[in-house]
Amino acid sequence: MLRLYDNHTSGNGYKPRLLLGHLGRDFERVEVDIDQGESRTPAFLKKNPNGRIPVLELENGACLAESNAILFYLAEGSRFLPSERLARAHTLQWMFFEQYSHEPCIAVVRHWLHLGELTDAQRAQLPAKREGGHAALAVMEGHLGRRDWFGGESMTVADIALYAYTHVAGEGGFDLGAYPAVRAWLDRVAAEPGHVPMAVEGIC
Amino acid sequence: MLRLYDNHTSGNGYKPRLLLGHLGRDFERVEVDIDQGESRTPAFLKKNPNGRIPVLELENGACLAESNAILFYLAEGSRFLPSERLARAHTLQWMFFEQYSHEPCIAVVRHWLHLGELTDAQRAQLPAKREGGHAALAVMEGHLGRRDWFGGESMTVADIALYAYTHVAGEGGFDLGAYPAVRAWLDRVAAEPGHVPMAVEGIC
Repeated sequence: MLRLYDNHTSGNGYKPRLLLGHLGRDFERVEVDIDQGESRTPAFLKKNPNGRIPVLELENGACLAESNAILFYLAEGSRFLPSERLARAHTLQWMFFEQYSHEPCIAVVRHWLHLGELTDAQRAQLPAKREGGHAALAVMEGHLGRRDWFGGESMTVADIALYAYTHVAGEGGFDLGAYPAVRAWLDRVAAEPGHVPMAVEGIC
Repeated sequence: MLRLYDNHTSGNGYKPRLLLGHLGRDFERVEVDIDQGESRTPAFLKKNPNGRIPVLELENGACLAESNAILFYLAEGSRFLPSERLARAHTLQWMFFEQYSHEPCIAVVRHWLHLGELTDAQRAQLPAKREGGHAALAVMEGHLGRRDWFGGESMTVADIALYAYTHVAGEGGFDLGAYPAVRAWLDRVAAEPGHVPMAVEGIC
């Protein structure tokens, strides 16, 4: 059975959980306490030398890291990854946008606030992170004024990648009030059959 | 003909130039002066609403952004992208690693130094950026102790993505002396037939 090394607070971990829900695939979830260094143990670093969750372990023991590479792998051959070459590349474009321009602002600030009091270094970076996060949301709002989805004519892994941290942006203090098209798209994603919430049953 | 919106100092722009060299494909290069705001004009934002180079414009006028999505698009069907599903996903894993864990440290510090005197905010972030850059190089060194290439059994777009900023890491003050396997891999990449240097003819 597929095994997912995951953390219940992580949007990056939620991405494959959400896709696996849509695909109706069983998997074993292994909780990794990242704040206690469990993603930096020698055993974990054999699975991902970069020391981050999520990691997907296949039935044959091979491991795959990076949330969006996992999404791509799982989605191949399904309706969540376009088969047409340019649409597939645009799906990847939005997934790289997510990891470069969106996650380092919106997810990182959410994680800082989750940990409690900000350090001085974090406080110094906060204005730039806020500006970067809102810039990413504005790019999404502009796209969603013209199109319903990010990667194609229906929901793809680009939507799943962007949904993960956008739907909890408020936990990082990002007010979505100025982004009505983003809010409507969040509702569309959550209304898709097979949707599963981010919260993991049995973990508060 | 393909058109590449590019900047001659950018490793992200160099990635598609290097791949196009290997593929032997003609293209028109359009220099975009990012420091003068030329990637934020209304005309450019129609090509990439995220206001960044590189952008690949196809013969039919369609545009594709994000350097690594461009690499994936151009490489499909060639020897630079594995056809086997897991090898293709591992290629993407390293490309997402490059954009999340490598470029924001190594390329960003190089860009700061290129612009001249650091701002106070940049100076405050420098220790963390140095640490992050060396962590990324250590992950690469570990991988290259076991394998010759990042995405498969021969050079792929993962190697091209990682080469772009690793081979100029010294310009960001990152000493590669402690990474002999990385240096040997840089030599392997540069020795591949079809290799083109980063410097653009006619631009200093």
